Amino acid sequence: MPVDEAIQIKGNSILGFSEAAGGTESVKAIDPSTGNEIEPPFISATSAEVETAAALAQTAFLSYSKKSGAQRAEFLNEIASQIEALGDTLTQRAVQETGLPEARIKGETGRTTGQLRLFANVAAEGSWAQPRIDTAIPDRAPLPKPDIRSMQRPVGPVVVFAASNFPLAFSTAGGDTASALAAGCPVIVKAHSSHSGTAELVARAIQKAAQQTEMPDGVFSLLFGGGRSVGSALVSHPAIKAVGFTGSTAGGTALMRIASERSEPIPVYAEMGSVNPVILLPQALANRADTIASGLHVSATMGVGQFCTNPGIVFIKKSPEGDAFIEDFVHKMKETAAQVMLNATIRNAYCDGVNHLKNNSRVTTHVANAQKRSDGACLGTTAVFEVNGSTFLDDESLSHEIFGPGTTLVRWTDKSELIRLLENFVGQLTGTLHATDEDISEYSEVVSILERKVGRIVYNSFPTGVEVCHSMVHGGPFPATSDGRSTSVGTHAITRFTRLIAYQDSPQSLLPQELKDGNPLGVSRLEDGAFQNP
Amino acid sequence: MPVDEAIQIKGNSILGFSEAAGGTESVKAIDPSTGNEIEPPFISATSAEVETAAALAQTAFLSYSKKSGAQRAEFLNEIASQIEALGDTLTQRAVQETGLPEARIKGETGRTTGQLRLFANVAAEGSWAQPRIDTAIPDRAPLPKPDIRSMQRPVGPVVVFAASNFPLAFSTAGGDTASALAAGCPVIVKAHSSHSGTAELVARAIQKAAQQTEMPDGVFSLLFGGGRSVGSALVSHPAIKAVGFTGSTAGGTALMRIASERSEPIPVYAEMGSVNPVILLPQALANRADTIASGLHVSATMGVGQFCTNPGIVFIKKSPEGDAFIEDFVHKMKETAAQVMLNATIRNAYCDGVNHLKNNSRVTTHVANAQKRSDGACLGTTAVFEVNGSTFLDDESLSHEIFGPGTTLVRWTDKSELIRLLENFVGQLTGTLHATDEDISEYSEVVSILERKVGRIVYNSFPTGVEVCHSMVHGGPFPATSDGRSTSVGTHAITRFTRLIAYQDSPQSLLPQELKDGNPLGVSRLEDGAFQNP
Repeated sequence: MPVDEAIQIKGNSILGFSEAAGGTESVKAIDPSTGNEIEPPFISATSAEVETAAALAQTAFLSYSKKSGAQRAEFLNEIASQIEALGDTLTQRAVQETGLPEARIKGETGRTTGQLRLFANVAAEGSWAQPRIDTAIPDRAPLPKPDIRSMQRPVGPVVVFAASNFPLAFSTAGGDTASALAAGCPVIVKAHSSHSGTAELVARAIQKAAQQTEMPDGVFSLLFGGGRSVGSALVSHPAIKAVGFTGSTAGGTALMRIASERSEPIPVYAEMGSVNPVILLPQALANRADTIASGLHVSATMGVGQFCTNPGIVFIKKSPEGDAFIEDFVHKMKETAAQVMLNATIRNAYCDGVNHLKNNSRVTTHVANAQKRSDGACLGTTAVFEVNGSTFLDDESLSHEIFGPGTTLVRWTDKSELIRLLENFVGQLTGTLHATDEDISEYSEVVSILERKVGRIVYNSFPTGVEVCHSMVHGGPFPATSDGRSTSVGTHAITRFTRLIAYQDSPQSLLPQELKDGNPLGVSRLEDGAFQNP
Repeated sequence: MPVDEAIQIKGNSILGFSEAAGGTESVKAIDPSTGNEIEPPFISATSAEVETAAALAQTAFLSYSKKSGAQRAEFLNEIASQIEALGDTLTQRAVQETGLPEARIKGETGRTTGQLRLFANVAAEGSWAQPRIDTAIPDRAPLPKPDIRSMQRPVGPVVVFAASNFPLAFSTAGGDTASALAAGCPVIVKAHSSHSGTAELVARAIQKAAQQTEMPDGVFSLLFGGGRSVGSALVSHPAIKAVGFTGSTAGGTALMRIASERSEPIPVYAEMGSVNPVILLPQALANRADTIASGLHVSATMGVGQFCTNPGIVFIKKSPEGDAFIEDFVHKMKETAAQVMLNATIRNAYCDGVNHLKNNSRVTTHVANAQKRSDGACLGTTAVFEVNGSTFLDDESLSHEIFGPGTTLVRWTDKSELIRLLENFVGQLTGTLHATDEDISEYSEVVSILERKVGRIVYNSFPTGVEVCHSMVHGGPFPATSDGRSTSVGTHAITRFTRLIAYQDSPQSLLPQELKDGNPLGVSRLEDGAFQNP
């Protein structure tokens, strides 16, 4: 498709079918490969603009929540097409704003449009809403049984905070936006200041798709804002009924607090980080040290380590095989060239984290070159540290996430120490086990611990590369996320933005299609206790 | 089955397979029909006993979470049988502690055992866990697709607070306990002080069932405690991963605060109350005024109005038909004899609520006899008030719940006033509409408002009588509940106590039965995007 000439970056917030830039503050994006500002300035939304976006979303909800799954699917599919139509304009802007390579941006664009189309299919198909029917028994004694039908219904307008590390797949038209729109909820996105231009391009694509598919004005808005005030105002607003966020623990817990202190508390789905423990068991290491070292190196350095699923901490037995593995892995990490990180904040936090370990006398530094906070380009250099299990247990700070291409290798001496080390962990997105069948029967407790600590258990592979599919769980107990019950990747995410509603003795005409007699949509539903797939 | 002679009320907390009474404080139950204390005293649990119950539950989780659905079903079915075996001992004690009639207690016992058996069936069948499988595509380009499988898994030990108004169905072995045990979570119940003897009898039945079906020690405990300290200590305890509560707004919001301030915040499912608006539309009133008045009278006085779903506020048009309806309803309410309420706290709050309206000069009092705080028996006398829509909009206190047999009739003049009145409502458990097809097409906005405000929409019937079935939703937006996403009645409740876990490239031997190749349990599951029912 040709690039649409009408779509330009102006620095304006998108308010439904309009745009606005009434504010006096602004922020420019910065090219992290040079440190130079990129035009234009993005004007921070005013309180009045926040109010307008919320009011539009509230009104839009009345009609958008009544659109059929097929209509929502049409909208989502059109968003995907409009994003594709942005073509190179989008790719170049995203590369410039994030320092990520063109291939990655193109891949992430494909993931984003694929995700939108997957949610479109789910919305159109309809079974996601878990429709259930219990039919009436009017002559039941002592009391008649009423007709009860229930399903998941959209909760209301949703605020989504874009993530710095996925300018497309976890941002303006990312997973939370796709799942909220698929569920029937209008969305207001708070753009991430480090890729505002990318955000505006995608927002204009969504705006255009909404108009072309005759969605209500206000089904989507995008607001810019440099500090925290726009985000706080959105989460505090009475029209908003749920929040999706991907970012720092400080940011996520601040939103949790705002949401819980509202006069009507609302759910916050904040994905806040993880060190994604990788456990190498002895037989697996003996059999496959080379492939594990290569795989770990790729996983630890992919995207300059800027993934929530980056393998930050690796548990390796104290053994000659373990020593040899480390030598190999350290060699690979040492040879990895420094790469541009997303922005100065992330680069500086990475440098601080690396320097904290480097300056710890109980930690062995294998690799930690030139971690500086102040060079023009935001370069991230790999780092590898090694520490004894007992030291790791002693010093809680060693288990903190260092967002970037740094890995800490923790040496354990026997099974009981490994169990103590793992029991000590807080909630994580993932836990990875490299193990043979023999290892697993010897270390069965390890699997059991991971079941209690993580959202996804990975066997003989690596945690990066989160497949977008129906079964994916990208979540995990606090503090990995604010709400370990759900996922931010994959189609299960649609129920983040819904609540159950029951209809008792409802006239057929007032029931959603999914609950009508005769099953007009042909959904899978639970009828009088039995699952029925037409 | 004969009454088991070994089961006695001793006043001791039940700690897994043991019991304890190390505390120095105690509370006796009170017969609300006389105001007299009933023996024995129930000893408040000590901090050490709270610790023991939590530690036992934490350990029990390791094995209980691995029991098959069939094993959990055996346990739940045995609990139902053991409760039935309590026979008249249970009925008499519950009648004495609550003032509820024997027929109600027997009915509620049947509902409780029926609910346990329903959850047993759900646990044994297995599809509740929403198993999903996406199979691997090893040769996919550019990256292989891994094998991902996910399902709902138990979250950990759960604390359940017993409700005063359902000594059986929302208490020791009530809905939250049944759903948590069905999901694979150990349960610690905090008994309600107004029916401690009933609680102990049921807890001993559960203890016996756990031993007979070889469940782990600590899968269930019951703690007594007069004040809030035992409950607070339980909700604060790091071993506890979720909370179920039915009771007051003050109690529920206090638990929400404790849970959100933990170093690991946990979900709280608090059902806190509702005025359950009933809307009478003109044609329906013209056609069926008699049956609506009779039905409303039964619903408003059932259980002395002590139901979360009691119809507290009824919207009636200003019209001669409306006046006639009110005359009829008032007559029925006036003729209703005073009945024993659950306890002095509830009776006193009811009297205060009634007197608040009685003393409001803008409110017409039709019935409000003898509302006294201090007689020996806790008698609840019916009350009916009438108020103009404009007054109701002016005075927020008129929309507060008055727990008991009191009803406020709100008169509206036209559709736009009715809409303003309904838009003004906060979240409710239910909303009821009496309407003909004509009414519905004229007042379509009313249905739309209810969809945003309530958990269950009832047509041409009454909100009391919550059917325990797969489709039931007994929930609703805050402040009706703390978490409007779920339900405390019906089989959907099982997912309150679970979280999603994904298994990537897992060996078959480590997968739960629900996710294994060949579908050994024959569950309904989503396989590569298609629902499969074997």
